Amino acid sequence: MSRADDLNATLRRVHPAAALNLSTAGEGLFYPQGIPTQSAEARGCAIDATIGQVTDGHGHALALPAIAEAIAALDFDQATLYAPQGGRPDLRQAWRAHIQADAPAGPGPLTLPVATSGLTHGLCLVATLFARPGGTLLLPDPCWGNYVATFQRVFGARPRTWRLLRERPEPGQALDLDAFRAALAALTEPSTLLLNFPSNPLGYSPTPDEAAAVVQAVDGSPVPLVVVCDDAYQGMVWEPSARRTSLFHDLSRLDPARVLAVKVDGATKELFYFGGRVGFISFGAEGEAAVVLEDKARAAARATISSVSATSQAVLARALASPDLAAQQQAVRERLAGRYRALKDELHRAGLPSLPFNSGMFAMVPVPGDPEGLRKQLLTEGVGVVSLPESRALRLSYGSVSRAEIPGLVRAIARHLG
Amino acid sequence: MSRADDLNATLRRVHPAAALNLSTAGEGLFYPQGIPTQSAEARGCAIDATIGQVTDGHGHALALPAIAEAIAALDFDQATLYAPQGGRPDLRQAWRAHIQADAPAGPGPLTLPVATSGLTHGLCLVATLFARPGGTLLLPDPCWGNYVATFQRVFGARPRTWRLLRERPEPGQALDLDAFRAALAALTEPSTLLLNFPSNPLGYSPTPDEAAAVVQAVDGSPVPLVVVCDDAYQGMVWEPSARRTSLFHDLSRLDPARVLAVKVDGATKELFYFGGRVGFISFGAEGEAAVVLEDKARAAARATISSVSATSQAVLARALASPDLAAQQQAVRERLAGRYRALKDELHRAGLPSLPFNSGMFAMVPVPGDPEGLRKQLLTEGVGVVSLPESRALRLSYGSVSRAEIPGLVRAIARHLG
Repeated sequence: MSRADDLNATLRRVHPAAALNLSTAGEGLFYPQGIPTQSAEARGCAIDATIGQVTDGHGHALALPAIAEAIAALDFDQATLYAPQGGRPDLRQAWRAHIQADAPAGPGPLTLPVATSGLTHGLCLVATLFARPGGTLLLPDPCWGNYVATFQRVFGARPRTWRLLRERPEPGQALDLDAFRAALAALTEPSTLLLNFPSNPLGYSPTPDEAAAVVQAVDGSPVPLVVVCDDAYQGMVWEPSARRTSLFHDLSRLDPARVLAVKVDGATKELFYFGGRVGFISFGAEGEAAVVLEDKARAAARATISSVSATSQAVLARALASPDLAAQQQAVRERLAGRYRALKDELHRAGLPSLPFNSGMFAMVPVPGDPEGLRKQLLTEGVGVVSLPESRALRLSYGSVSRAEIPGLVRAIARHLG
Repeated sequence: MSRADDLNATLRRVHPAAALNLSTAGEGLFYPQGIPTQSAEARGCAIDATIGQVTDGHGHALALPAIAEAIAALDFDQATLYAPQGGRPDLRQAWRAHIQADAPAGPGPLTLPVATSGLTHGLCLVATLFARPGGTLLLPDPCWGNYVATFQRVFGARPRTWRLLRERPEPGQALDLDAFRAALAALTEPSTLLLNFPSNPLGYSPTPDEAAAVVQAVDGSPVPLVVVCDDAYQGMVWEPSARRTSLFHDLSRLDPARVLAVKVDGATKELFYFGGRVGFISFGAEGEAAVVLEDKARAAARATISSVSATSQAVLARALASPDLAAQQQAVRERLAGRYRALKDELHRAGLPSLPFNSGMFAMVPVPGDPEGLRKQLLTEGVGVVSLPESRALRLSYGSVSRAEIPGLVRAIARHLG
């Protein structure tokens, strides 16, 4: 009996009025034993490598001074009155410039971003506009578990997956492009494709050649595609051999008869403002198409949340105007890059195999036996990690452990896998 | 051709990949010419009575000192790191106590509230869990336009309405209880009923007798009901003859074989923290039913937004802990009550008929001719109001006009309707 079945059976017994009124989504939804639950269980661990946020390793935020100053300088009117639907105009313009500044070949078609309540809400808006019951959502495997909750459990789409990594990944040739092309070729109706680089849980970004091959395969899709770039970890790329900028910039230039590129991003990870819950949804479109798509995105946002926290938007708008922001962001990125290199070194030293990782804040360590059992064992040793049983692996976050803790983290795992 | 048809036709022409991928919701959604649009058009008006938020009449927030102090004292870690899914535990407990303190007959069955990104998101979670394509949503007429966007356009429910007011409403006998009973009697399958007192756009709250009749009618429903109390304007009741507390407290005690009571509320209007976007969803349930319903609500929140702004939650949690909060809230309520009495007096003096209003921050003035034409005319005179063409009326908000502006507001309208 699944967890949802179990909950529904209980409800039929103790609250018939609720049970008889559940929608299909209401029947399917249950709070998963996923990353938030595993992260909650790791609270109090000496080493907590569970969560995809950046701390100093002791549970404190790594201060981006521009964000701290913006919080200290919050204007009461701006923080407490309604912000316009769709987001503050100044913030939307600033975020558009922020995206365009990152386009490797100059700005392509790009709508004015619509503010969302974090990236999940941006994905929820994509699902609202494009997910049909029984329609296809093509996901990488492995991927973030919440995609399934949003697209399948709430909106009824049917996920299919392509295996992200080759059987024997080699440097510069890690993505399973054959699997990707085969998955696209098998599509028979308009479909949504979700891309996520740097990826969660892998921490992998493609090489420029791999990226070009992905874009070329999308361009050759047999069906009209909505291609969603989940750019949560945008710019957090630690190897010069990996592509640093979003594939959105290439995808947005493809023929609108075949491809709609959608960019979901935000301040959450990019500016280390995890609690702010300010994200954005933008489309690779211009002219009349831009007008229509932005109208529908604002309408979907209004129907699901009305508007985004004005307090958080005020913080972000002020921080984005700071001339020092980029340098401050770079300083935190360099700390993360240092942790990344330390993790690479320690894994190598311990002889512990890992899947290819070069970006973001995660690494995956294969566990041939029982990853969930190992996670629970590690908890008793004061070490928190995430288990991904379906991938037969652990996910380590180096966002929330200090560099000094990394040798201990690796040693704790190696003792059980050596 | 409807606005949505128009947008879809454009998209088919200029962006086939987007058009061919739209879901039913994606096809139906368009940003309405509703209150946010009318409010945007009124920006710059000397008198702006469009929007349901409380200002000093000059666009500035009416400071609740506890909120101001909480903003000034924001803790960087609390404001920038992730808040737990479902909401900060201390905040959820505090909000539960806040609800229970208001129960006229002592606390009844009540789950731990789940934090939402404003009240709209709370309604979105209700729709996620309970709205079925083609299923019935029973709404009062008139009601807030966004209900239709959330329940019908996104989730496919079919709205039916009951006429809220009698043909000739009399003091203490304004609600059309016969219409309400008839609408309930006509239900043939499990359905969702939405109640909103104090109501938007009417600004009406029932008398204790009317409230008891509503609860009794719900108790006699021929089908299992989900009854949603949209308590946005909770406690803003200006006449001793009107019921001040939520009907949720009575509905939550009804038989779970027939009724599930859901409470959607939040700090937005109750604590005048409009921009914070912190709302809550709670159920009238206990024991195992509470566990299941809270689990599903957290799951739905995770699938749509992940978590609520930690910055806003930190502000609200601190403000709720202030011993002075209730007195400060009362002080702003008294200013609103003063505006309410001034509006009543001026309407009477001008001989301008209005529909019954006794609470919230709105009043409706019938316009026999063309309310939208009158709204546009008033804009040219520096007066912003909302037109409700389907109700043949104007909606006046006294939240955003000062008491001194009220005679001018009424005179401007009376000149055209006298």
